[in-house]
Amino acid sequence: MKLDATGLEILAPEECLDLLASTPIGRIVFTDRALPAVQPVNFCLDDGTIVIRTAIGSKLAAAARNTVVAFEADEFDPATRTGWSVTAVGHARAASEPAEIERLAALPLTPWAPGSHDHFIVMTPEQISGRRINR
Amino acid sequence: MKLDATGLEILAPEECLDLLASTPIGRIVFTDRALPAVQPVNFCLDDGTIVIRTAIGSKLAAAARNTVVAFEADEFDPATRTGWSVTAVGHARAASEPAEIERLAALPLTPWAPGSHDHFIVMTPEQISGRRINR
Repeated sequence: MKLDATGLEILAPEECLDLLASTPIGRIVFTDRALPAVQPVNFCLDDGTIVIRTAIGSKLAAAARNTVVAFEADEFDPATRTGWSVTAVGHARAASEPAEIERLAALPLTPWAPGSHDHFIVMTPEQISGRRINR
Repeated sequence: MKLDATGLEILAPEECLDLLASTPIGRIVFTDRALPAVQPVNFCLDDGTIVIRTAIGSKLAAAARNTVVAFEADEFDPATRTGWSVTAVGHARAASEPAEIERLAALPLTPWAPGSHDHFIVMTPEQISGRRINR
């Protein structure tokens, strides 16, 4: 087991992807008018790529287009003070080709929020890292 | 009930603070070497100020010093697809006065991670916003 400088277990990239695949909610981190911004989203993994479904015209759709974003998911148990977190960093882009949009729309990704969500943001992690707290 | 453009309920600032006070884990969002970065932390609220306890020399301690950060907490229930999120934005600073450090060290804030965590980052929200998903 590899530990980082603060004593947390360092997770291997494959384990990070397995953990991402195990949870339906993550948080996309981006810059909005020069300020740090973060928004929870439901997402799915599609062959290692993070797929987010959002409303066209949303702040997220505008801000996360063709820029570097971070994506984070975690699970913590306050009772045992254990848990894990995974962070991926990479370029986000909006899906624009009809064939790709059709394929993404068939993924098991149902938006939790009401209203139309026909806009897809995809991000292929260029860096991925994860940590686990065990006691 | 006020709804935003995507149909989510807009939470009032007082409710946002009450929700922040109800959870021990949040995520601090900052910039690390010009890239978006995010790190889960345990925290507490001290009279409306977010207090994070970290290790001196940590990436977080270095990156979140005298800069604008975002801080996010949320709770979602995948079974019912309901939940809330709150995001605060403001200037973070490291506590440096011995009297302040002594006071912060007495807060009910025990780090989950192992090792020494004698460094405090405080952030007073300048903007706070929250959303709730109900079905």
